[in-house]
Amino acid sequence: MANQTMQLDHVFGALSDATRRAIVMRLCAGEASVGELAKPFEMALPSLMKHIRILENSGLVVSEKIGRVRTCALQPEALETIEDWLSGQRKIWERRLDHLENYVEKLKNEEKLSARKPKSR
Amino acid sequence: MANQTMQLDHVFGALSDATRRAIVMRLCAGEASVGELAKPFEMALPSLMKHIRILENSGLVVSEKIGRVRTCALQPEALETIEDWLSGQRKIWERRLDHLENYVEKLKNEEKLSARKPKSR
Repeated sequence: MANQTMQLDHVFGALSDATRRAIVMRLCAGEASVGELAKPFEMALPSLMKHIRILENSGLVVSEKIGRVRTCALQPEALETIEDWLSGQRKIWERRLDHLENYVEKLKNEEKLSARKPKSR
Repeated sequence: MANQTMQLDHVFGALSDATRRAIVMRLCAGEASVGELAKPFEMALPSLMKHIRILENSGLVVSEKIGRVRTCALQPEALETIEDWLSGQRKIWERRLDHLENYVEKLKNEEKLSARKPKSR
């Protein structure tokens, strides 16, 4: 439980930055070397590596260095942790809307019934 | 576009903290006063208010003070921004898996064809 909470903290935190989201989006389409990932950003490699470390720390990305090339890959299971959390909230929210709908329906029916009753004088 | 990017930064950032996620979860079930929100946390009200401000800044929560009571409500549209972002990534990822599947299928078929051909001597 504590582990899951920490993972949610790290995954949400990792995705709170546009550069890191762009890296995740790129890796959804397939593995890439750090050099390839750096191309679209006007960013020095050490700065990019900081972002990659944060993504690795969150479990969203794994990387492996072979020779002089470090290749990064997405770990989609980490995205699933926050998808699961979001769908949990959606269920609570929708259940609440259902209750509200039922309540409004009940009020309407009660109104109809009382309108039909002959008024007492 | 820049606005959407900033909103994603703020919503993901707001949800990177367990207390703020618990507040969102509570508000999914219905509006609550700051006092009610504070109850489950062993936290001074000013600290809780800091979290509420961050949630308001992200657009996830709105609050209104009537008399001495501040009531908070969820803005589910803000959760939808990150749900949309996640489903976008999932599409890219699944398209990639489909391509990989097709490629493996093609390789298998080619193998079968070459196995049927009589070997040249």
